[in-house]
Amino acid sequence: MATPFPLASDSSAQRLAQQIAFIIECDKLKEIFRQTINTQSRRPENDAEHSWAFCLCIMVLAEHANVPNLDVLRVLKMGLIHDLVEIDAGDTFAYDTAAVVNQHDREARAADRIFGLLPADQSREFRALWDEFEARSTPEAKFAHACDRFQPMLLNARTEGGSWRAHGINHTQASRRGAPIAEGSAALGAAIDQLLRDAVAAGHLAPAPSP
Amino acid sequence: MATPFPLASDSSAQRLAQQIAFIIECDKLKEIFRQTINTQSRRPENDAEHSWAFCLCIMVLAEHANVPNLDVLRVLKMGLIHDLVEIDAGDTFAYDTAAVVNQHDREARAADRIFGLLPADQSREFRALWDEFEARSTPEAKFAHACDRFQPMLLNARTEGGSWRAHGINHTQASRRGAPIAEGSAALGAAIDQLLRDAVAAGHLAPAPSP
Repeated sequence: MATPFPLASDSSAQRLAQQIAFIIECDKLKEIFRQTINTQSRRPENDAEHSWAFCLCIMVLAEHANVPNLDVLRVLKMGLIHDLVEIDAGDTFAYDTAAVVNQHDREARAADRIFGLLPADQSREFRALWDEFEARSTPEAKFAHACDRFQPMLLNARTEGGSWRAHGINHTQASRRGAPIAEGSAALGAAIDQLLRDAVAAGHLAPAPSP
Repeated sequence: MATPFPLASDSSAQRLAQQIAFIIECDKLKEIFRQTINTQSRRPENDAEHSWAFCLCIMVLAEHANVPNLDVLRVLKMGLIHDLVEIDAGDTFAYDTAAVVNQHDREARAADRIFGLLPADQSREFRALWDEFEARSTPEAKFAHACDRFQPMLLNARTEGGSWRAHGINHTQASRRGAPIAEGSAALGAAIDQLLRDAVAAGHLAPAPSP
């Protein structure tokens, strides 16, 4: 076991030791695998890869947000930490309606533990960002959710259906899952509508079931 | 092959199609493997995972930058895109002195191609961020470099030497590699000095060779 960092007895060194313990704990995110698959190797994407790709979407696509003057820094911070709770709570497949029921409670307990590793002020800041993301009421949280849903749908579309095909997802289910995208970005919402239609036409997504 | 997004004939739809092509190209970053290994699975880290972990370090450790009022958004943007050039140029092992010689030229050609996928204004913005990171002259670029070097050294320290042991790296080499950390953050520089001493004491890093 490596020692902590006994740089000095001051609070700055203590803060840094806590921050480093948090960063090391977060390394576990690389081992949480999702249902989506990557375009090249076609292996499952992990949460660290997703978090990066999601943040890249935020950076590239921010101009399409429904509001001007989006606080992009706050959206990126949400993106970097939004899935850390899955270190304890695991990845909940978006279309698993049973698991989704108690997902927030499981994840809130994880947030208590994981953000609790940080110095108190930073722990409060990170928890507030995660709560904001979860509540989805600010323009920043709405745009973050838009990108969080856009990114895996784009991966599915570029892997001939990816997790849609693996789990027999149909157009109605995928449209429902994609609905919050338009709340953050009408342009991305329209792009996803088109992408889902194209996926059905290509046979990568099952059509809507007959009524 | 999926179709692009024929949302409308206006320039906004054209921009979005270019941005999506860029995002899909960037998915290749998940397949570029590094010499560092992850703390849990002990498999090599890939560039997408590193980019996320690096950005998390920026977010958590920004208070330790040598300058107040760091533009954290710009540092995060550098972090998200700094390794995209490795999609074409590959990962250059930091201690491979032969490969490092022409690294910048190889990576600059990659930057031309990859950032060139974006709309022109955004292509210029991303290229300027990458150039700023490479030049390492602004406080933001110096702090970005500090975190880019801190993160893999922390992984090595927490994997009983990781790539140091695999490649027989000694304290003199690692100290030289870590030297730019203090240019961005004296506190992180001091933490790395301590970490390297601890690693030598633990037998995870070879001591400095006799003069």
